[in-house]
Amino acid sequence: MLIARVIGETIATVKNERVRGTKLLICRQTDHTGKPIGKPYVAVDLVDAGVGDLVLTGHGSAARQTHITKDTPVDAVVNAVIDHLEVDGEIVFRKT
Amino acid sequence: MLIARVIGETIATVKNERVRGTKLLICRQTDHTGKPIGKPYVAVDLVDAGVGDLVLTGHGSAARQTHITKDTPVDAVVNAVIDHLEVDGEIVFRKT
Amino acid sequence: MLIARVIGETIATVKNERVRGTKLLICRQTDHTGKPIGKPYVAVDLVDAGVGDLVLTGHGSAARQTHITKDTPVDAVVNAVIDHLEVDGEIVFRKT
Amino acid sequence: MLIARVIGETIATVKNERVRGTKLLICRQTDHTGKPIGKPYVAVDLVDAGVGDLVLTGHGSAARQTHITKDTPVDAVVNAVIDHLEVDGEIVFRKT
Amino acid sequence: MLIARVIGETIATVKNERVRGTKLLICRQTDHTGKPIGKPYVAVDLVDAGVGDLVLTGHGSAARQTHITKDTPVDAVVNAVIDHLEVDGEIVFRKT
Repeated sequence: MLIARVIGETIATVKNERVRGTKLLICRQTDHTGKPIGKPYVAVDLVDAGVGDLVLTGHGSAARQTHITKDTPVDAVVNAVIDHLEVDGEIVFRKT
Repeated sequence: MLIARVIGETIATVKNERVRGTKLLICRQTDHTGKPIGKPYVAVDLVDAGVGDLVLTGHGSAARQTHITKDTPVDAVVNAVIDHLEVDGEIVFRKT
Repeated sequence: MLIARVIGETIATVKNERVRGTKLLICRQTDHTGKPIGKPYVAVDLVDAGVGDLVLTGHGSAARQTHITKDTPVDAVVNAVIDHLEVDGEIVFRKT
Repeated sequence: MLIARVIGETIATVKNERVRGTKLLICRQTDHTGKPIGKPYVAVDLVDAGVGDLVLTGHGSAARQTHITKDTPVDAVVNAVIDHLEVDGEIVFRKT
Repeated sequence: MLIARVIGETIATVKNERVRGTKLLICRQTDHTGKPIGKPYVAVDLVDAGVGDLVLTGHGSAARQTHITKDTPVDAVVNAVIDHLEVDGEIVFRKT
């Protein structure tokens, strides 16, 4: 999974009915301290995450291993809200 | 899913019969404001998108979770037209 | 799918019997005008493409959605020969 | 699989029950000598690895070929602890 | 598939029994002349390849389409030894 920051939300005319009922979060991968790096992508929210949250996102077929996304053309989900990151024995991020 | 701009269309001699009947859109991933970045790719259109539209594209096996693309050698679909993008509480893109 | 230029062919001692009977084309992804960019990769030919052709290649599990490649350790196929590319309303490539 | 260094651990509020019981290791891909390069990612620990270990990580649907991760939205696992790396006939890394 | 040079081997404490019995080759993707570029990765050997060989590697679910790797958390295999590469009508590599 990738460590990502939720930076926003997109409203879109989605073909698939089940996807239509979900929140589509705009995420950006971060480094190990939670600092955004790289290009944005959109993931279906499974955990009621919000803008600013640090999350884990699952990609590829992993994204369809849930009741909401099964058999839908979805390739990314937010599957966890990160509470804290510990790197080399130090807490480098803690959810406030 | 990726946020992408539809920049064109390709006509190709496709082996697979079902794919042959579809629109093959040339897309480029964008940043979170809709500005194209990165290399182009081709996705099967599911939502009657047109050149200039900002869309979401699904990749990998996600692209075959539809009646049109099931069991075809397709790895990318346009599965939504983006209405607007909201980043950090501001509308950064709105479909005109 | 990726837009790619066929730049050559490889002869290899392949373990899988069915793959052994196929043409293994060396491809390079191109930009939207057909100019090669990026690293080469090898795709199983499904459409009798030749060196110099501009093609579409399907990747990942998409590459096994054909009678030839089903259940084989293949992750890329040439699934279409591009006739022309139209970008922003202009023909930027046409097969000669 | 990628050669990766375990650099830390994340505690996260995970939706999926089975994933909730696992260790989520923060990894960074390394070069062939074990030196970290590239962005971090999070993988489910299958081999009781610890911070500092050099490991192999499996990605994509490979990550769900275990009893722990089957049918979960997981796309990366630590599936081996590296004992040594031999490159061009020389031992370039040995676990201490 | 990627064109890759086998640069070494790794010995690792692998959880999966079937994977444990295989050779884990360290590979680096090459350009179209066989010159290594990019980061190393580890692939299960299916063709008795050795250090220095130029090979084709299959990635993702393709890597599990063999008796050895079926249902294992493996995402890369060496599935062919390259005999020669012909680019733009010239032999640019021939196995010695």
